Amino acid sequence: MNHDQILSEVIRSNNSTIVLIVLDGVGDIRNKDYNYKTPLEYAKTPNLDKLTAESVVGRIYPVSYGITPGSGPGHVGLFGYDPMDITIGRGVLETVGLGLELKDKDVAARCNFATINDQGIITDRRAGRIPTEKTVELCNILRTVKEIDGVEIIIEPGKGHRFVVIFRSKDKEIGSSINDTDPQSEGKSPLVAKGQNKPSEFLASVVNKFVKQGLDLLKNESPANSFLTRGFSSKPDLLSMREKYSLESAAIATYPMYRGIASLLGMKLLPAPTSIKGLFETYVQNRQKYDFFFIHVKGTDQAGEDGDFEAKVDCIEKVDKALPILLENRPDVIAITGDHSSPCGMRTHSFHPVPLLINSSFSGRDDATRFHENACNNGGLGFFQSKYLMSLLLANAKRLNKFGA
Amino acid sequence: MNHDQILSEVIRSNNSTIVLIVLDGVGDIRNKDYNYKTPLEYAKTPNLDKLTAESVVGRIYPVSYGITPGSGPGHVGLFGYDPMDITIGRGVLETVGLGLELKDKDVAARCNFATINDQGIITDRRAGRIPTEKTVELCNILRTVKEIDGVEIIIEPGKGHRFVVIFRSKDKEIGSSINDTDPQSEGKSPLVAKGQNKPSEFLASVVNKFVKQGLDLLKNESPANSFLTRGFSSKPDLLSMREKYSLESAAIATYPMYRGIASLLGMKLLPAPTSIKGLFETYVQNRQKYDFFFIHVKGTDQAGEDGDFEAKVDCIEKVDKALPILLENRPDVIAITGDHSSPCGMRTHSFHPVPLLINSSFSGRDDATRFHENACNNGGLGFFQSKYLMSLLLANAKRLNKFGA
Repeated sequence: MNHDQILSEVIRSNNSTIVLIVLDGVGDIRNKDYNYKTPLEYAKTPNLDKLTAESVVGRIYPVSYGITPGSGPGHVGLFGYDPMDITIGRGVLETVGLGLELKDKDVAARCNFATINDQGIITDRRAGRIPTEKTVELCNILRTVKEIDGVEIIIEPGKGHRFVVIFRSKDKEIGSSINDTDPQSEGKSPLVAKGQNKPSEFLASVVNKFVKQGLDLLKNESPANSFLTRGFSSKPDLLSMREKYSLESAAIATYPMYRGIASLLGMKLLPAPTSIKGLFETYVQNRQKYDFFFIHVKGTDQAGEDGDFEAKVDCIEKVDKALPILLENRPDVIAITGDHSSPCGMRTHSFHPVPLLINSSFSGRDDATRFHENACNNGGLGFFQSKYLMSLLLANAKRLNKFGA
Repeated sequence: MNHDQILSEVIRSNNSTIVLIVLDGVGDIRNKDYNYKTPLEYAKTPNLDKLTAESVVGRIYPVSYGITPGSGPGHVGLFGYDPMDITIGRGVLETVGLGLELKDKDVAARCNFATINDQGIITDRRAGRIPTEKTVELCNILRTVKEIDGVEIIIEPGKGHRFVVIFRSKDKEIGSSINDTDPQSEGKSPLVAKGQNKPSEFLASVVNKFVKQGLDLLKNESPANSFLTRGFSSKPDLLSMREKYSLESAAIATYPMYRGIASLLGMKLLPAPTSIKGLFETYVQNRQKYDFFFIHVKGTDQAGEDGDFEAKVDCIEKVDKALPILLENRPDVIAITGDHSSPCGMRTHSFHPVPLLINSSFSGRDDATRFHENACNNGGLGFFQSKYLMSLLLANAKRLNKFGA
């Protein structure tokens, strides 16, 4: 038996509530400009400190040693799905992130409006980053194309110059093994779509026809007289959180990508709050309705990618300040961690293990009195792969029976 | 996907340099005769202490929990090959260690000159440990045998009473599943070689003929009037360090076995220095030419196997004293560890996890200020299997792309 098989054998339901707070990219490394502290170490976090003293801590590897995860692999690991086995394509992520529903055989692509010159050479891959309102208008123009060769074309605007296209076939099988038509740099022509197998070859021919018709529709537009397609993909075949864990789950997240991942796992998407305080308030308003809450905080990752140590500290301190809203309406299990590290000194996602805290009536407590990377090195949870986190949360929630006699 | 598949997907090249210092058998356990310290703990290591304060530490298991590795498994793990999947035979190790080239289908055996009496009973398995010069002379006598049944016989002297034989077949398939003819104790006759499958049966018959002809050639020699064969093996089918990691790699090692392992992985063998200082100087002389340097220090293991705590401390202090040569010509990534533990109190290889240090601009630093077993227990790297070390070194060298969207 493997871990997931044991888990499915011992899972049970009860009325406990689990809250998983994901501070995106929170992990960091000690920074010489800040007295060799990490942002978590540097931040003033009285509420988190108090919680840590009553909790156990450790560190988790999102995918594997040395591997820097994208947001997709980082999050699926936290929800107990093996990020080595599951790939969520960019087209799918973008589409579900917009709140659109994907059917099982649909193929989705994320697209950019772009600018091409008379010779068909790309001069701006983002069409001068046209505003969302313009993208809405251009999508309405493209919607003239409703169907090609029996494949329905569904077009939805995203943010800025981005939009998505869903290809939905009535009868004929379509595949998603298709290259991007985006050549990834300016000064080149858009690429022709090619399929790597029969169903993908068919859809590639549809894509090429769609691009041709689209260019004709946009020919008098400026600067967005073209578009590029990327990340062709279909919905991965995943058990929902209900099927896998008997959990009614809800996501409290602002950004499309994280809402998208949550929706693929069958989480209910709660209204997106605009502040960190709002994230916790949304939990309080809904706490009777769900067993599991995924609360996503984006600011830590944004600050890490911007190399802005103080912004990262500020975001952590805001979470700390809002934490009493959660603690006064205390769930049975609280976990605080990240989907990966994003050290300010590296300005990007990184491979470093992520700090983790688990608090429940049965978590026990170790010697840590502050929640940061180096305190977590010595915690009661040790170092492990993030795909095992959900099992620990379920165990803390007494949602797992004994295994074996 | 598994770890290695992800790795091959995300690997990229850059101009960084990685240095892996292997202190053979450095891991130890606290020794009651030395105030309950380990050699690393007891040694005075000001340079290493300073480096440790800027690094992260942890402990690695070479093969698995409780498993004591030989030098082969210990090293292949450090280079990121799974020691559970890869077996490098003793004959192969000895042969490549002598700097000889093995072809893919060759079978190699390591041999000892020995003494037998009139009844063909072994009276000394090492022929009184005859000196290398005598072995060279005897090998020249054996070389009269050039070919048996279409199998070329290549004979090369090693150190002391040791030599190797390479069997190279022109047409007929030969196999290496052949028992040692060495019965492992005196007072017995040499064993007859037997093959466990058809190609090995054929080669076993060649081996028995070679032994018979060899005994005839040596019959008037004393004390080396016989020889014993061991460790029949062929080259394992391994990706080179270049193929696996896009690394141009070089080995700085004195002892044949470690040079042999390095050469099997496609490392360039640099001239063998005679001092610890020389190891680091060889790195400095060649640092522009390679991406990866494997520096092997034998003294720690020798002292461990001799049960000589003070010699182990002395070797560690010599490394510490030479360390500034490396630090003044600093590579992008430094790792210091061992291939296994060899506790002085046990006088042999052991199963204990090995201390590890990683230093780079992106390693971060934990609370450790000294490099020894017990400080490493609380480090920022945790405990993990040594086969993942290379991934961490590549990540620290920024040689791995992000995985997934």
